[in-house]
Amino acid sequence: MFITFEGIDGCGKSTQAELLAKYLEKIGYEVINIFDPGYTKIGNEIRDILLDLKSNKMHPHTELLLYSAARSQLVSEIITPALKKNKIVISDRFFDSTTAYQGYGRDISLDLINKLNLIGSHHLTPDITFIVNVDLKNANGRLENKSNIDRMESENSKFKNKVLSGYVEIVKKYPERCFLIEGNKSVKEIQKKIKEITIKKIR
Amino acid sequence: MFITFEGIDGCGKSTQAELLAKYLEKIGYEVINIFDPGYTKIGNEIRDILLDLKSNKMHPHTELLLYSAARSQLVSEIITPALKKNKIVISDRFFDSTTAYQGYGRDISLDLINKLNLIGSHHLTPDITFIVNVDLKNANGRLENKSNIDRMESENSKFKNKVLSGYVEIVKKYPERCFLIEGNKSVKEIQKKIKEITIKKIR
Repeated sequence: MFITFEGIDGCGKSTQAELLAKYLEKIGYEVINIFDPGYTKIGNEIRDILLDLKSNKMHPHTELLLYSAARSQLVSEIITPALKKNKIVISDRFFDSTTAYQGYGRDISLDLINKLNLIGSHHLTPDITFIVNVDLKNANGRLENKSNIDRMESENSKFKNKVLSGYVEIVKKYPERCFLIEGNKSVKEIQKKIKEITIKKIR
Repeated sequence: MFITFEGIDGCGKSTQAELLAKYLEKIGYEVINIFDPGYTKIGNEIRDILLDLKSNKMHPHTELLLYSAARSQLVSEIITPALKKNKIVISDRFFDSTTAYQGYGRDISLDLINKLNLIGSHHLTPDITFIVNVDLKNANGRLENKSNIDRMESENSKFKNKVLSGYVEIVKKYPERCFLIEGNKSVKEIQKKIKEITIKKIR
């Protein structure tokens, strides 16, 4: 079982991913909680380049290729071996982020995005994807408490709104796999909804 | 005019690229002498990951995507602007390295390689490509004098032989653009041949 969490920075997806991992472990599953880009040694080095504020000259295609490279390493080194051992893998972001950010956000053609998503994921698709949808105001409010804002977090509201509506399009396109989660509710309410959907899918 | 130099590490291509740049400058051309992967800030950071001996767990697809990412940055930030200013761009390696190393060397399908080469190069093709062909023994002999051998240079002879024969295939496929240069000859003899071909093409 491979579960991914998606949404803009500050939507609360990382908190929810952790809570779901703890819950599934409590009821007896072996869980590995990861994040994309990064987690592997090589992936973390790629992440550093991607999120560095000094990488301000990065071309959108370079960005797309770097996210795909980090994901390729994550799938081959971590996700595929974990799934083979029957572990539940929960990832904070996966290829839908590339569709939303580089596709809808940066206006790279979705045809090219899909090609790179297939290569970067080694043709692996999540079983469940939670897309946590929040008002941009709420998300930005949460980011204000962070000490170091990274290159993607520092993008302007126009870009973030394009990413948000991109995520809504993704849910429409893949209704079997993707669940739009109302992220403006309380942590507990959101957690309850996510647990329900996950347990139903596992059984 | 965009000129690239190709061949295995230790074949002498970097020396020849520098000599050609100096010669073209002497006769009045504006020349920029670059290398791939790297040269840009982002590209050099990607290069560090690619060539680090500690990146030993790197999946071949990760490697392919990282080389393409570095190239995308090099083309958009350096090569295209320089060509627009009518400079001659000489690059030590370009997408034929990806075909030879990741395609023929790592056995990734040439179809996938070609797709990534198009994305990474932003559909830019060199006007002349010199492929410097040497015996593996000669190339390895030159590498012995280097203090720090990188991840690609440290590959075994089986891999390097596949790369060498890959380069020969590339020359066969693109005879209009690619010139096989006999790299076992003296630096002066090689330089003479490269100068002749370049001047003929420029005129």
